[in-house]
Amino acid sequence: MKFKVKPVPIRTDRSSVIMSQEEAQELGVLVGDRVKLVFGKKSVIADVQIATGLIERNEVGIDRTIVEYLEIEEGNEVDIYPVSKPASVEFIRKKMDGQKLTKDEIYAIVKDTVKNALNEIELSAFVLSNYFYGMDPDEIEWTTRAMIETGERLSFERGIVVDKHSIGGVPGNKISLIVVPIIAASGLLIPKTASRAITSASGTADTMETLADVNLSVDEIKEITERVGGVIAWGGATNIAPADDKIIRVEYPLAIDPKPQLLASVMAKKGAIGAKYVVIDIPVGAGSKVATVEKGRELANDFVELGRRLGLNITCTLTYGGQPVGRTIGPALEAQEALKALENAKPPKSLVEKALGVAGTLLEMTGVTTNGVEHAKKVLESGKALEKFKEIVEAQGGNPDISSTNVPVGDKTYQVKSPIDGAIAQINNKRLVKVARAAGAPKDKGAGIMLYKKGGQHVKVGDILFEIYAEKEWKLSQAIELATREPPIVVSGMILERYPSYRFI
Amino acid sequence: MKFKVKPVPIRTDRSSVIMSQEEAQELGVLVGDRVKLVFGKKSVIADVQIATGLIERNEVGIDRTIVEYLEIEEGNEVDIYPVSKPASVEFIRKKMDGQKLTKDEIYAIVKDTVKNALNEIELSAFVLSNYFYGMDPDEIEWTTRAMIETGERLSFERGIVVDKHSIGGVPGNKISLIVVPIIAASGLLIPKTASRAITSASGTADTMETLADVNLSVDEIKEITERVGGVIAWGGATNIAPADDKIIRVEYPLAIDPKPQLLASVMAKKGAIGAKYVVIDIPVGAGSKVATVEKGRELANDFVELGRRLGLNITCTLTYGGQPVGRTIGPALEAQEALKALENAKPPKSLVEKALGVAGTLLEMTGVTTNGVEHAKKVLESGKALEKFKEIVEAQGGNPDISSTNVPVGDKTYQVKSPIDGAIAQINNKRLVKVARAAGAPKDKGAGIMLYKKGGQHVKVGDILFEIYAEKEWKLSQAIELATREPPIVVSGMILERYPSYRFI
Repeated sequence: MKFKVKPVPIRTDRSSVIMSQEEAQELGVLVGDRVKLVFGKKSVIADVQIATGLIERNEVGIDRTIVEYLEIEEGNEVDIYPVSKPASVEFIRKKMDGQKLTKDEIYAIVKDTVKNALNEIELSAFVLSNYFYGMDPDEIEWTTRAMIETGERLSFERGIVVDKHSIGGVPGNKISLIVVPIIAASGLLIPKTASRAITSASGTADTMETLADVNLSVDEIKEITERVGGVIAWGGATNIAPADDKIIRVEYPLAIDPKPQLLASVMAKKGAIGAKYVVIDIPVGAGSKVATVEKGRELANDFVELGRRLGLNITCTLTYGGQPVGRTIGPALEAQEALKALENAKPPKSLVEKALGVAGTLLEMTGVTTNGVEHAKKVLESGKALEKFKEIVEAQGGNPDISSTNVPVGDKTYQVKSPIDGAIAQINNKRLVKVARAAGAPKDKGAGIMLYKKGGQHVKVGDILFEIYAEKEWKLSQAIELATREPPIVVSGMILERYPSYRFI
Repeated sequence: MKFKVKPVPIRTDRSSVIMSQEEAQELGVLVGDRVKLVFGKKSVIADVQIATGLIERNEVGIDRTIVEYLEIEEGNEVDIYPVSKPASVEFIRKKMDGQKLTKDEIYAIVKDTVKNALNEIELSAFVLSNYFYGMDPDEIEWTTRAMIETGERLSFERGIVVDKHSIGGVPGNKISLIVVPIIAASGLLIPKTASRAITSASGTADTMETLADVNLSVDEIKEITERVGGVIAWGGATNIAPADDKIIRVEYPLAIDPKPQLLASVMAKKGAIGAKYVVIDIPVGAGSKVATVEKGRELANDFVELGRRLGLNITCTLTYGGQPVGRTIGPALEAQEALKALENAKPPKSLVEKALGVAGTLLEMTGVTTNGVEHAKKVLESGKALEKFKEIVEAQGGNPDISSTNVPVGDKTYQVKSPIDGAIAQINNKRLVKVARAAGAPKDKGAGIMLYKKGGQHVKVGDILFEIYAEKEWKLSQAIELATREPPIVVSGMILERYPSYRFI
């Protein structure tokens, strides 16, 4: 059927065509059905949306994506007819019924995901089926390979390419800013692509962005890595494993991260950048993604097995994730603390220990040394890591004269103090993140939290527990209010509980 | 934060606010997160959408629903802040993990569904969880009760209220147009609410609409039922069990109908109209919803048990669903055939037999007679059912002088003939429906199919197998093309197969 087009100022991932109920019935389609729009020699598939009383008969609203793609103008005539669902919807149905998918079926689903050919309901059904049934090792391997092959890839002519990844869940984990320069200064190549915060207070890309540009293309990542040895870029600016972003978008509203997807997501990114040796950090503890060491080991085994299938050498480190790494949370505060570590300027021990552990593992895996931590420590303490980090910052368009004393942080601050004498009984990761986000992180780079006390330490009444940093007064108030309502740090007297409890009257 | 509003000409079930990526970050929200818009004393919850390059900083696009609700104009300032998800999302997560929900949790989910407080991904997750795990009898009962209580309800001061329902899946099932007048003429009350076609060629509401108005309010349904004894209205024009429509909308793209939802959907509608005795027709056979008699019995048991819990007396009839009921498919053709039955004007036997069986069951359940089929047959053959049907049509604003000879059907027709001598080996319900829809049904009331032969009958080469009716030439061509590519009726010679097969050379 022919329709006059009316451009509508919205833009969505999946193209939409908006029509009246009557015209949809005439065409025999329902909300969410797919139609093909043909204009001249170009055509595009779009979802049907129904608008009541806004679109005339013989008229369709089309979004900006279609306007631009078809090069069509208001009043032009477009031919529209129904088309069937892509075959991948049938494969998703198969998975919904608990059946194992074939390689071709998984490739079809991943390709259609990248092409935006699946709508949100269909993609959620796929992710939920994986949540309910899991995937077997073959399916996980095929998913990972399909994710790699449907995106851009890196390859290096020379050198040993390594990488590190943390599965996340623990705040303040700025170790990549220390590990990458140690590794690069040790002669290995480490083209680290990092993510931005989704629900956290700062992703490694957000932290690095306070010092340098992280929006690098795949070609820039390759060039800088080959020249300087390392890079810390935002993966989202590239087209590496693009299926992953789209899958994450439907996982987010449901707050799920099914294990097959987690494994494929991490390993696809590592595979695509051409890494041969990878350390995967699995923080374990209450409030992180993995609650127990047993679960951590199970996940580690899955990573190692998937690595074997893909030809990647994987070592997993199970690390303590029960409280933040180091003492800072939020982009600029985290960058500041990482610089302190690189400058050997009294950094928190937990931060240095974790960074050296991960870097050391990579150095041992690649045969650079048999005592990785010792080697990494020397590179750090000699100042070579700091020097390398400045090279990396400069290569990414940042100021190489950066130091921990000149990173700008939020100038609106508030100190939360202990109401009693006692000890830190509990540090709640999730609440800390909420407060840091309320203060403006990750958008306001200078916003965040500095911890003055960590788990187990003794405090006196009036001691500072933590300090909130913000760039805007109203966000500071919001964060204070939240920290008061849901205290992220609990101080208890030494007697936590009395049992049985009785009193003399 | 304050924003200037910019109305956007779309309208969705769930309100949307469209902002730039930068402003979303400033506000700390992601696509799909919920925000509250406050304007004067009014406020509304909306979903965040991101538009690139279309919305200025300090500006938000808002859809027509919000414009009208807040009574806001272009350029007005609105205050926007993030709000958390409703608690029902947590309950959906609980069900996703296979846990049984409490009554309060189920009520919260159903209430939020009705309020459009759940987005498509969340609602799909609920439906899919029920598909994967099922629901236990308590959960099904609570879902049904919640669906009844969140919508309009009917109650009658006098009389015995009965109803019938077919779970669908078999084309040509126009028996309600015969059962309702037989029952009403027998002194019972039958306020039948019916559905329109979603994927079929004609729903009972579409069929009835060729003769009378079916867009009746709950008050009109009550008034007509009390006055005339029966009504055939479109349920979608009322606010009876409104959660159901919204659930169906997410089931449709996945082509699923989880049993708990099917049970709750049917029984909520029957409970809400105050029926005490209900016959549920379960068509069984290849190509209908229930493939085997065993599965049919299992479903029947579930209906009876749910009825017991709700205080409804249920009888299920398992009927033959392997081929269409009667000989016509499509709104006007089905109405015409139902009239033939009421007029005793040589109607197809299968249609009359099924209608009398269902009507008879209701008459026996309510104690009107001990031989229901005989009683129903008398009412039909005496002309009382036809008379009653005309009263109903007139009460619903239709012409009471209607007859099977003056129902207008499509004037563009095409006869499909047998290519060989043989017998009808296969009638494919789904293909028949596809052809009828391609011909214009249910939108074009006169479009559809008339069957000249049914399963098992002998045919000679050139005999008419079926005739396609359409209102528009291009739709007729489309239907012919489809019927040629995917023949809905297969004629075989008497020897279906030779085994073992060999030839002399």
